[in-house]
Amino acid sequence: MTTEKVRLIPLGGLGEVGKNMMVVEYGNDIIIVDVGVMFPDEEMFGVDLVIPDTTYLMDKKDRIRAILITHGHEDHVGALPYVLPMLDFPPIYATRLTQGLINVKLKEHRLLDKVSVTAIAPGDHVDLGICSADFFRVNHSIPDAVGIVIQTPIGKVVHTGDYKFDYTPVDGKPADLGLLGKIGNDGVLVMMGDSTRVESPGYTPSERVINDSFDKIFANAPGRILIATFASLISRVQQVIDTAQRYERFVAFVGRSMQNNVQMAIELGYLTMPKGMLIRPEDINKFNPDQIVIMCTGSQGEPTSALTRIANQDHRQIRIQRGDSVILSATPVPGNEKMVHRTINSLFRQGAEVYYQGISNVHVSGHGAQEELKLMLSLLRPRFFVPVHGEYRQLVLHAKLAYSLGIPEENIVVAEDGDIVEVTEDGIKLKEHVSSGNVFVDGLSVGDVGQIVLRDRKVLSQDGILMVVLTIDKETGEPLAGPDIVSRGFVYMRDSEELLESARLRVLDAFHHIEQRGHGGSDWSFVKDKIKHTLSEFLYEQTRRRPMILPMVMEV
Amino acid sequence: MTTEKVRLIPLGGLGEVGKNMMVVEYGNDIIIVDVGVMFPDEEMFGVDLVIPDTTYLMDKKDRIRAILITHGHEDHVGALPYVLPMLDFPPIYATRLTQGLINVKLKEHRLLDKVSVTAIAPGDHVDLGICSADFFRVNHSIPDAVGIVIQTPIGKVVHTGDYKFDYTPVDGKPADLGLLGKIGNDGVLVMMGDSTRVESPGYTPSERVINDSFDKIFANAPGRILIATFASLISRVQQVIDTAQRYERFVAFVGRSMQNNVQMAIELGYLTMPKGMLIRPEDINKFNPDQIVIMCTGSQGEPTSALTRIANQDHRQIRIQRGDSVILSATPVPGNEKMVHRTINSLFRQGAEVYYQGISNVHVSGHGAQEELKLMLSLLRPRFFVPVHGEYRQLVLHAKLAYSLGIPEENIVVAEDGDIVEVTEDGIKLKEHVSSGNVFVDGLSVGDVGQIVLRDRKVLSQDGILMVVLTIDKETGEPLAGPDIVSRGFVYMRDSEELLESARLRVLDAFHHIEQRGHGGSDWSFVKDKIKHTLSEFLYEQTRRRPMILPMVMEV
Repeated sequence: MTTEKVRLIPLGGLGEVGKNMMVVEYGNDIIIVDVGVMFPDEEMFGVDLVIPDTTYLMDKKDRIRAILITHGHEDHVGALPYVLPMLDFPPIYATRLTQGLINVKLKEHRLLDKVSVTAIAPGDHVDLGICSADFFRVNHSIPDAVGIVIQTPIGKVVHTGDYKFDYTPVDGKPADLGLLGKIGNDGVLVMMGDSTRVESPGYTPSERVINDSFDKIFANAPGRILIATFASLISRVQQVIDTAQRYERFVAFVGRSMQNNVQMAIELGYLTMPKGMLIRPEDINKFNPDQIVIMCTGSQGEPTSALTRIANQDHRQIRIQRGDSVILSATPVPGNEKMVHRTINSLFRQGAEVYYQGISNVHVSGHGAQEELKLMLSLLRPRFFVPVHGEYRQLVLHAKLAYSLGIPEENIVVAEDGDIVEVTEDGIKLKEHVSSGNVFVDGLSVGDVGQIVLRDRKVLSQDGILMVVLTIDKETGEPLAGPDIVSRGFVYMRDSEELLESARLRVLDAFHHIEQRGHGGSDWSFVKDKIKHTLSEFLYEQTRRRPMILPMVMEV
Repeated sequence: MTTEKVRLIPLGGLGEVGKNMMVVEYGNDIIIVDVGVMFPDEEMFGVDLVIPDTTYLMDKKDRIRAILITHGHEDHVGALPYVLPMLDFPPIYATRLTQGLINVKLKEHRLLDKVSVTAIAPGDHVDLGICSADFFRVNHSIPDAVGIVIQTPIGKVVHTGDYKFDYTPVDGKPADLGLLGKIGNDGVLVMMGDSTRVESPGYTPSERVINDSFDKIFANAPGRILIATFASLISRVQQVIDTAQRYERFVAFVGRSMQNNVQMAIELGYLTMPKGMLIRPEDINKFNPDQIVIMCTGSQGEPTSALTRIANQDHRQIRIQRGDSVILSATPVPGNEKMVHRTINSLFRQGAEVYYQGISNVHVSGHGAQEELKLMLSLLRPRFFVPVHGEYRQLVLHAKLAYSLGIPEENIVVAEDGDIVEVTEDGIKLKEHVSSGNVFVDGLSVGDVGQIVLRDRKVLSQDGILMVVLTIDKETGEPLAGPDIVSRGFVYMRDSEELLESARLRVLDAFHHIEQRGHGGSDWSFVKDKIKHTLSEFLYEQTRRRPMILPMVMEV
């Protein structure tokens, strides 16, 4: 029995969707896989972004050999600008397209000169301390996605990244089944596998099926065609370009991130476009409507995106006109359904024909369904298995799937963010839990918005706030002015003068009934508590609402 | 050419999901179909319920002949307690089960003695002024649902209510196709049809298919079985009772609304239960786990529901134990996905086996899919068609479906809340728009929370609030105390003393730079504006956040 061990410490993406970040430790060496963001949910009031809590790494910076990136999606690279400075900028390895996307991001944050991003290709081998890494191609909804084999002294640790199996991908580069089989034959100690789509039976269809839908829509569209998708979905862009070529239409890209990504992908050779097909957004009206394709962002109904602005008649250049066909080539991310539906409704209202997932096959997922997860597990045949990338139920279902393929129950661990998973040659187990969770980016600050601020925002959002100011004579302890009451988000003040006047009288009354009121220099906390309590009861009784009540006492 | 006309005025449910309410006018007579609520979406901060705006009816109360109710779901009856008093309590007609559900609701609001609810049955005929109403049975996810034929002097106006076609419904009462055919043969002037599920191709499966899933789960469950569904889904309750009987399990109902509805349905004969099967929630632990079925509410992840409390280990009587199987026999209503997923994750975490729509066939919709909508249109063969119950895109798709069946484009009108649809024997058209929209119920008040209060709550929820209080000498115009600054939901004050101190100095500085400051009795609005502006700029520059800023000047 050996005491050598690999430790896997997920800092994000296990028990949630997003901010993927996995720490792999062997002896003195630390290798990190992905550093992603998560978008705030509706409970995280006012928060811009959520990044992983990296407290665990703070005293281990010098042991970090590398950050390996599986692909260029935000939930895998988006936290780099925030986390890299905290970790003293460890070296990054990524494929060329991923490198391009990371560099765009680092440039925006003025960090480009501080970071070394080394381009690797599937099949490459990189030495990292006592360990090493090999990369294998996977198919996903972005080109140049890879899985990673970390070779440790006690065996191979495989991270699949996000993946599906597409035998006919748009970029012509299917996953290398032979290589995956070889890795499996050579023996895999532990595999970490993407669980995102474990709830779906069968196979995710090939990207190719979208060509048929596009063909049908392009053949019948009487006017312009607008297509919204993710800015990073380069293969979808290629499909649109190819279809546009068949139907002799020009293509304009609208929206900064779409334009930046397309330009970068063309430069790096990930996107090919016939000469003369590209037109500028401002030139759209120089052509007939049936000569035009417009590609833009906004497939998630994001408030500031191009498609949302177009739908809201709020876009600088583009208005919906009768005869327009709009394709939403994406599925709403859970939580975005309402915003997406709002966009679709507005587009219909303005007379567009709208095609979207649910009524038309205009999108396929980037993640493998059950049969693909089984295929990956069967190719790699790991001794131990840790499901990653998913909410808890998805991790459990993925674990059950692995069990159904013959991996013993005791060789499977369902872990969540912050759990330490210890793997030896003989066993796998959950050890202690380390600091993990959500760090909020809000405006310029990283991490200073915590639970208290969020809780206050929640209370404020429900019933608003009511402030009471009382000015007190320092000497006599008697009120000199006020109480003045102001409220926001509670009642419409102009319609509620009576209620607020009664509240004022209650405050005065309560004040006069306090025996021990205080004197110059006291903190008046007893008085404030009394005012708060009195008002809270009175207002609840009158309105059945509980606004935040903020009493202030001014001494003069 | 006739000048007689029917006017249809939707006050809710067209261009949205929920708060269904349709006004049908002929000459001096008004008939209302359904008076439902909508549940607030995430933009309606702190609002409890949303009801239709009934301003249009305020000067026409004496013309209202009846309120006809299609079925007992909240989005069809929920606004009655709020709207009835505004309309001077017009008579209500509803089927027996619906009547029972309405009465429970009226009792809670102490309105029972003020309202007349007449029970009708499918096939009944009611005279209402110059018009009359007939009712026909439809299948829906609640028993005793009906559609309505309003006979007017110029022809029949048919409202389908919510419907699907289930040839093998659990209550053994399929829709009467012969009657629907006869109505169609006799001639329908205008049909209003449920659009909820128009995006789904094919047929909605029969409720029966759930029996097979229940059988499979019951046959293999090693311990207790918990089943969550809508409290009004009486037929699902019957299915559970029937399955429990086959597997010799006792059934306990948990949650007030579930218990109330079950009791009422048993009393009215809509639910049959073998003697001795019912046990009280507090007696669950007296039996072996494999003898128990628990039915509860919470299939939507509602925070205060039984299942959510159980999942959060916060329920008075029930804790999840290993071996429990939990069935969520419902589909998340759009917008509820995250809450439902949170519940499922928690249940898995505590060791339950969880079955839910997506991985198991444990629910079917109550609304017809495309083929059923076509069937209804083909049976009724209306001259004119108005799609109802759906967001705008769904209404448009339903209109297209009707067009595809041969109804001429000019005979179809896509209307939204507040539109007046005028129907004569010769044509249908959109006329002027009347007052319509959302009236918010918040605590005790109906309608006093308006757009300004909601906008304030939104701002407060994003970046919080910052108050500045300055006490001024009435005579000299010089500050006596302050400025005091308090913030909530902006920054954590204890960590931000420096920032707030700088803000204080900025305020003082700004104050001293104002030449025309004011004097006793002035409203100080110029000073307040200056303070607000100065602080807003300073704080945005420092934090990139825009808290609400509320300056107050106290004169002494």
